[in-house]
Amino acid sequence: MGEEAVMDATEVIRHQNGSSNHQSLEFDIYPLNGYYFGSTNAIPFKDETLADRIQRKKSNYAAHGIRNCVEAVMLVELFKHPHLLLLQERNSIFKLPGGRLRPGESDIDGLKRKLASKLYVGENGDGAEWEVGECLGMWWRPDFETLLYPYLPPNVKSPKECTKLYLVKLPGSRKFIVPKNHKLLAVPLCQIPENHKTYGTIISGVPQLLSKFSFNMIGLE
Amino acid sequence: MGEEAVMDATEVIRHQNGSSNHQSLEFDIYPLNGYYFGSTNAIPFKDETLADRIQRKKSNYAAHGIRNCVEAVMLVELFKHPHLLLLQERNSIFKLPGGRLRPGESDIDGLKRKLASKLYVGENGDGAEWEVGECLGMWWRPDFETLLYPYLPPNVKSPKECTKLYLVKLPGSRKFIVPKNHKLLAVPLCQIPENHKTYGTIISGVPQLLSKFSFNMIGLE
Repeated sequence: MGEEAVMDATEVIRHQNGSSNHQSLEFDIYPLNGYYFGSTNAIPFKDETLADRIQRKKSNYAAHGIRNCVEAVMLVELFKHPHLLLLQERNSIFKLPGGRLRPGESDIDGLKRKLASKLYVGENGDGAEWEVGECLGMWWRPDFETLLYPYLPPNVKSPKECTKLYLVKLPGSRKFIVPKNHKLLAVPLCQIPENHKTYGTIISGVPQLLSKFSFNMIGLE
Repeated sequence: MGEEAVMDATEVIRHQNGSSNHQSLEFDIYPLNGYYFGSTNAIPFKDETLADRIQRKKSNYAAHGIRNCVEAVMLVELFKHPHLLLLQERNSIFKLPGGRLRPGESDIDGLKRKLASKLYVGENGDGAEWEVGECLGMWWRPDFETLLYPYLPPNVKSPKECTKLYLVKLPGSRKFIVPKNHKLLAVPLCQIPENHKTYGTIISGVPQLLSKFSFNMIGLE
């Protein structure tokens, strides 16, 4: 058996990255137990029905044009495997933390603002710092009621919504404070592709968008 | 209606990339009719049955260790939409052009060698130049007969195969010469996710891996 066969898998990845030498494909993730999860007052949900939500999107489009959203991909380590942080609303819908940009706001500024408001409410109004990394992917909604596509479909001149996913690098410890009617969950990457229906189009594609990275699990042997 | 609503979609993307300012997310693609497609002598297929292929992989693993493969994502423009170049074998199996690395060979060198042998056979032994760009994704096969995963599954210490996808930038014109028993096809990105069973796990994920890019279609208004 060749020498490569007995290298441990992490070594295999390091070796490969070393030989390609094109981009930094290593990414540090920290153990879940370095993070504190707390809760604060519930915030009201905007929509009660799908019809309401579509109506609201139509009004917003008429007033402001395309809906530009940004969402964060944040990872922690548990059982030596990367876990993705997801918000769960009403015990059912899973979402990446993020939201809609204000008119003229940059992706990075908007994502930082959304992370501060959704994941951390400082007692004295002080926010946490967020390190926003590269854009991983982009999803388009050609019309209000259509599905999301990972490309702008041919002949669509005025898409209604664009959602961009950014990698956000977490420090080794952090306080997450979320409203009581939301849950912040750490879901193993390996469970996500198998549960496409539970997590929806955007989230179920995240493991693939992350596949080029090798994860340095900090604090592990 | 706000001003953004009447911007054409390409403008929307440019505007967004300008505001994020983190990476170069623009990518030039050229019309299909700038390329020449020819054929040369058929080459024999290595495997006749799945069992044969698995047996060959096991022997190779015993001799050389993990099977490292590299594959190319190459795009052309047709009907104002990006099309992915795919090789089709025996009128059925679709593959990205690429193949197995030699022991010690770098990803980039190996991919260039494979592209030269699979897509271009120069009459005088001269090869075409290939511009290999960033790594888009990586797929793992934990065992010879298992599926591919976009992450290294927990507790897998000695994966049997790793396939890395690289973006390859094509010039505006090129000769592609493929063996007669292969076909080189340009498949619209928008058809790929809808035909998961036809294209398989790796190819059907490509549109998502490319979603962060905005495509400059050169030669179009």
